[in-house]
Amino acid sequence: MTPLRIAIAGLGNVGAGTLRLLEQNKATIASHGGRPIEIVAVSARDPKRVRDCDVSLLKWVADPCELAVLPDVEAVVELIGGSEGVAREVCELALEHGRHVVTANKALLASHGLELAKLAEMKGVRLMFEGAAAGGIPVIKTLREALAGNGMYAIQGILNGTCNYILTRMARDKLDFDAALLEAQALGYAEADPSADVDGFDTAHKTALLASLAFGIEPDLSHVVTEGIRQITPVDLEFAEALGYAIKLLGVARILEQGIEQRVGPCLVPLGSSLARVDDVLNAVLLQGDAVGNVTLVGRGAGSNPTASAVVSDLIDLAHGYAGLPFGVPVEQLHKGKAAPSEVRVCGWYIRLQVVDKPGVLADISAILRDEGISIESLMQNGRSKTDSVPVTLTSHPASEAAMRRAIGKIKGLSSVKQEPCVLRIEEA
Amino acid sequence: MTPLRIAIAGLGNVGAGTLRLLEQNKATIASHGGRPIEIVAVSARDPKRVRDCDVSLLKWVADPCELAVLPDVEAVVELIGGSEGVAREVCELALEHGRHVVTANKALLASHGLELAKLAEMKGVRLMFEGAAAGGIPVIKTLREALAGNGMYAIQGILNGTCNYILTRMARDKLDFDAALLEAQALGYAEADPSADVDGFDTAHKTALLASLAFGIEPDLSHVVTEGIRQITPVDLEFAEALGYAIKLLGVARILEQGIEQRVGPCLVPLGSSLARVDDVLNAVLLQGDAVGNVTLVGRGAGSNPTASAVVSDLIDLAHGYAGLPFGVPVEQLHKGKAAPSEVRVCGWYIRLQVVDKPGVLADISAILRDEGISIESLMQNGRSKTDSVPVTLTSHPASEAAMRRAIGKIKGLSSVKQEPCVLRIEEA
Repeated sequence: MTPLRIAIAGLGNVGAGTLRLLEQNKATIASHGGRPIEIVAVSARDPKRVRDCDVSLLKWVADPCELAVLPDVEAVVELIGGSEGVAREVCELALEHGRHVVTANKALLASHGLELAKLAEMKGVRLMFEGAAAGGIPVIKTLREALAGNGMYAIQGILNGTCNYILTRMARDKLDFDAALLEAQALGYAEADPSADVDGFDTAHKTALLASLAFGIEPDLSHVVTEGIRQITPVDLEFAEALGYAIKLLGVARILEQGIEQRVGPCLVPLGSSLARVDDVLNAVLLQGDAVGNVTLVGRGAGSNPTASAVVSDLIDLAHGYAGLPFGVPVEQLHKGKAAPSEVRVCGWYIRLQVVDKPGVLADISAILRDEGISIESLMQNGRSKTDSVPVTLTSHPASEAAMRRAIGKIKGLSSVKQEPCVLRIEEA
Repeated sequence: MTPLRIAIAGLGNVGAGTLRLLEQNKATIASHGGRPIEIVAVSARDPKRVRDCDVSLLKWVADPCELAVLPDVEAVVELIGGSEGVAREVCELALEHGRHVVTANKALLASHGLELAKLAEMKGVRLMFEGAAAGGIPVIKTLREALAGNGMYAIQGILNGTCNYILTRMARDKLDFDAALLEAQALGYAEADPSADVDGFDTAHKTALLASLAFGIEPDLSHVVTEGIRQITPVDLEFAEALGYAIKLLGVARILEQGIEQRVGPCLVPLGSSLARVDDVLNAVLLQGDAVGNVTLVGRGAGSNPTASAVVSDLIDLAHGYAGLPFGVPVEQLHKGKAAPSEVRVCGWYIRLQVVDKPGVLADISAILRDEGISIESLMQNGRSKTDSVPVTLTSHPASEAAMRRAIGKIKGLSSVKQEPCVLRIEEA
């Protein structure tokens, strides 16, 4: 039986994990794929780096783009990362040369997935990316295949383990954001430059991909309203818990009558819901379909081994030839999703303000909310101080994003309001 | 594009749900499958029964076996149920005539899945059964494809919604088993003859199937040690909760050094674990693999629409031709699983005894356990009575099934022990 001959570009954590897994479970992988998987060549920035896998017998290539044109390679595995540059080049070149591509690169797919999928279709090869969202959780295959008979209407996901770890530590141990981030960095959960994680961009990439698969739309990052978790303080987590909520960074995509809502941001989720109890570096995705109802998948969303599990499942699908289309349907059948306007993006809201403690402040704030048609559900002023400002938190009944933006704009203009308000959505399960 | 022409045998809840779903989501199903799905003919015991779907335009066939030999049918969907009789005949006949078979029939598959899969392989067609375990939760595809690169070592599942509903009502509202069962029957969650559900057989069928997929073994019902939930009383649920556990009917399959453990029975699971919080008719499966770690899938495990979602996903796989082998690997590569002997099936235990309240009883019981090398972790006698017996509950540290069976045999022989002891496993997550 001819093996599936592959080349791997990028031998960081996931690349090394993939090599290890292909070696360790060689027999079961060959059984499932119908033929063995053979690594023809690899490429990595630093061939001398110490890796937790045996690379001594592998053929090394200096330029990863060379892998894409090696004559005996059937599939190229791109694990370099980044939406541009060499990662993109390797993928394009491989597809152009009629090689399947397996990648875990959400940034690349969220930005250029559509063109890459088109190219793959034109060349009659596959573009697979199970590892690009939620690591070991098979959410791509579940949306693309297992729930393909459903009209999907919503996705809510905890898709970034770094943020979930930080928020869990902040909630459980009262750390502030900076301390929790430092700890996450020390543990290797967060990068030296943590922006992609904590500012929500990584979750936005994954949300755009999942929305595309769920709703049959072209992935479009520009439709994903994105906020990170830097503004969250231990106070917010305490208040939220007192109100019966946890705070989680969610990627949400939802069909509304007037379009599709896609957004990333820290949300209050009811403590009794399935997502509230997903802690530490775990990821979770709640999928809602018309026939299946709610399906929740929970597992490790990142890391060498779980992501390697996803990459290898793609390779097995390629080996036996049962790999589906990148977005489940032909690219020409994907439609441009219409972004739901902010007037119809409605949810409950949590607002924390830092205000000077003097008569009339709450009256001013309440009046602004009333004028925007926003109804207050609860309001708490914690502590009193004649000199310093004090935190006031309030929650609102469902109101539109547009109305809330206008109200917050006016509230920020009040002289008694200090600091930037912290405004979070309440996501009822 | 030639449609995928199918015939459906059995129009009960799932059959009617499948018809409805194929009609309702026709466009998205055709997009995903690459071609439309067309229902050529149907068969059901009572064509006149009122159904929640339009059957007026369908071709009806009196004998379901006829469906298997209609010249223009590519796939037969068997939704009759039962491990023998007409369901089995229809599937065999269809495969023999080179038709793909889609079924949600766990009883049939657990008993004859191996022969059916062999037949399918020989004839070059597919046998698909996503709907046979956990309804809308895509656990078959996840094990067969998404986690295929893993060495799997354990599965724990809440696989029967009826039992989960009954246990939830008993725990939450202090109902006894009979009252909770009556209610489940009134709601349509339990059959008039509830044995398949409450005696654990349905869960055993599913456990045998999942173990086969996870461990690459032939499905073998005789290896599944099976107990139901009839012996559980509200007292057990109360005691369990006081000890920090919920009681769930679990199907468990696990690789041990000396073989594979497969069993079904009510278990104490820690309140903090992901399975403890899965209530009502929901199902959940926790899958443990060497690369992926733990993955938990939660959703609706039965019912017309969720099961139809699973059946239609199989049909979509057939339509575009990416359907995999029934058990993930060729039948000849499945090995006969060696059942782990009861000496190595080790876990903690919960025991409830009804004993006469007189000096020396607990000493006798403790001595028996000591003689079997079983170490008591906790012991509670609730209430005192000179005339009647009183319940005593105890939990043990991990001990083998063999030792516990011997001990219980001796304990039952004590004159001070009334009623059949209730013996449950403690399943630490």
